[in-house]
Amino acid sequence: MTITAADSTAVTGAQPTGASDSTCASHGEHGPHGPHGYAKQKDQHLKRLRRIEGQIRGLQRMVDEDVYCIDILTQVSASTKALQSFALQLLEEHLRHCVASAAVESATQDETSGESEIEAKVAEATAAIARLLRT
Amino acid sequence: MTITAADSTAVTGAQPTGASDSTCASHGEHGPHGPHGYAKQKDQHLKRLRRIEGQIRGLQRMVDEDVYCIDILTQVSASTKALQSFALQLLEEHLRHCVASAAVESATQDETSGESEIEAKVAEATAAIARLLRT
Amino acid sequence: MTITAADSTAVTGAQPTGASDSTCASHGEHGPHGPHGYAKQKDQHLKRLRRIEGQIRGLQRMVDEDVYCIDILTQVSASTKALQSFALQLLEEHLRHCVASAAVESATQDETSGESEIEAKVAEATAAIARLLRT
Amino acid sequence: MTITAADSTAVTGAQPTGASDSTCASHGEHGPHGPHGYAKQKDQHLKRLRRIEGQIRGLQRMVDEDVYCIDILTQVSASTKALQSFALQLLEEHLRHCVASAAVESATQDETSGESEIEAKVAEATAAIARLLRT
Repeated sequence: MTITAADSTAVTGAQPTGASDSTCASHGEHGPHGPHGYAKQKDQHLKRLRRIEGQIRGLQRMVDEDVYCIDILTQVSASTKALQSFALQLLEEHLRHCVASAAVESATQDETSGESEIEAKVAEATAAIARLLRT
Repeated sequence: MTITAADSTAVTGAQPTGASDSTCASHGEHGPHGPHGYAKQKDQHLKRLRRIEGQIRGLQRMVDEDVYCIDILTQVSASTKALQSFALQLLEEHLRHCVASAAVESATQDETSGESEIEAKVAEATAAIARLLRT
Repeated sequence: MTITAADSTAVTGAQPTGASDSTCASHGEHGPHGPHGYAKQKDQHLKRLRRIEGQIRGLQRMVDEDVYCIDILTQVSASTKALQSFALQLLEEHLRHCVASAAVESATQDETSGESEIEAKVAEATAAIARLLRT
Repeated sequence: MTITAADSTAVTGAQPTGASDSTCASHGEHGPHGPHGYAKQKDQHLKRLRRIEGQIRGLQRMVDEDVYCIDILTQVSASTKALQSFALQLLEEHLRHCVASAAVESATQDETSGESEIEAKVAEATAAIARLLRT
């Protein structure tokens, strides 16, 4: 897959067509670039995740070579931190794009349906944050 | 056993003597099974870590396929939980083997040097737990 | 709409004046009821916090009466969980009211200033979530 | 204070003999200083907890005065951190005194019963750490 410069930005900033984009719906009839807030930084995300994958493989090496337990635990903490940091980045983009869009849509639609949309998005984001906190 | 100043590095540095097993020193010229508490469950640990590695690769696929942000966050939470769970297992073995050995050694040695060894092991373990909590 | 006594705690439902409400500004020249999302559930919040205060006093009693360490730790976990749960509730209201308002304002204002407002609100909320995660 | 049968199982292994001090059993016919590792630092613990109680009351004031949500969340993070820090201190003393004592006792007793005691103490401590991590 050839990635052009345009691709990395195209993706989300673009708010082109119907409601689907602004609602950040969970499925993509959106073509190759996808509708979500996080898509813009896709390359950055993949880079981060590949680094985390490297850390996990490093952990396997450490276990295999009988490295001292405490040193392994330090590396586990670093990997967990990296995962949390990735999650925060994703969450920030989600709030900026999907939740914000839902808020605007709510404000411009008839009260009832609009209200329930932002409510749903916020409840969903809060539940995701709760899951991150509980781990 | 004579305890030299060099022993203060026992916690992290290499401890190349026969006693190294009971002090859970950090390096192993200890044969196939290794000196550490966790070595016994080595295969189980490697299996767990390979599963986590698979989860991280799954995250890359999700990002690549523009899966909905919230679903990615759920998977991040699962991976973080798996890492924490691995850390807890490692910690339990460390307490059971390394910390317990240090306690016994402390009790059977002269007060002063013995005391400092269990102190050092406990401080080290507590610091590791603090790092896990802070992530 | 008839306002009952119960409603008087509804505090913010009241959307009285100008932009200040929708920006969820950090200071209150807002009269007795306050501008923030969380104000609506003020009584519920105070009740939760008083319960947590009771838990902390319970911890003091436990320490004073030499209760077994592990049992104290269990109570600390319960208190921490209660605080996190309070934080999540507050955060949800903040997203629903302050962040959503900023999004709407951004969409209805000229691009530049509007953009920066939702950006700022989201960055601020994300930083708060990061602080919760890091504890 | 009457200690019932149910009490002796409270801790887990319990070991209701004269050795109870070194096993850090959960009840104290141990005089003013108490049997537990943390008793020594009792005053310091109570001071910490009173400070945390003050923070929780501060949170109530903040809610009552409609302080900005994000500022309240910052204070919640500080209180959670203080609680975690108290827990770590308690845990460190528990490892140093109770777990270490169990290890020594295990080493000096007949294999079977001794083994199970340190096992039980370590499993109990690990479960407590897991609860702290999960909050």
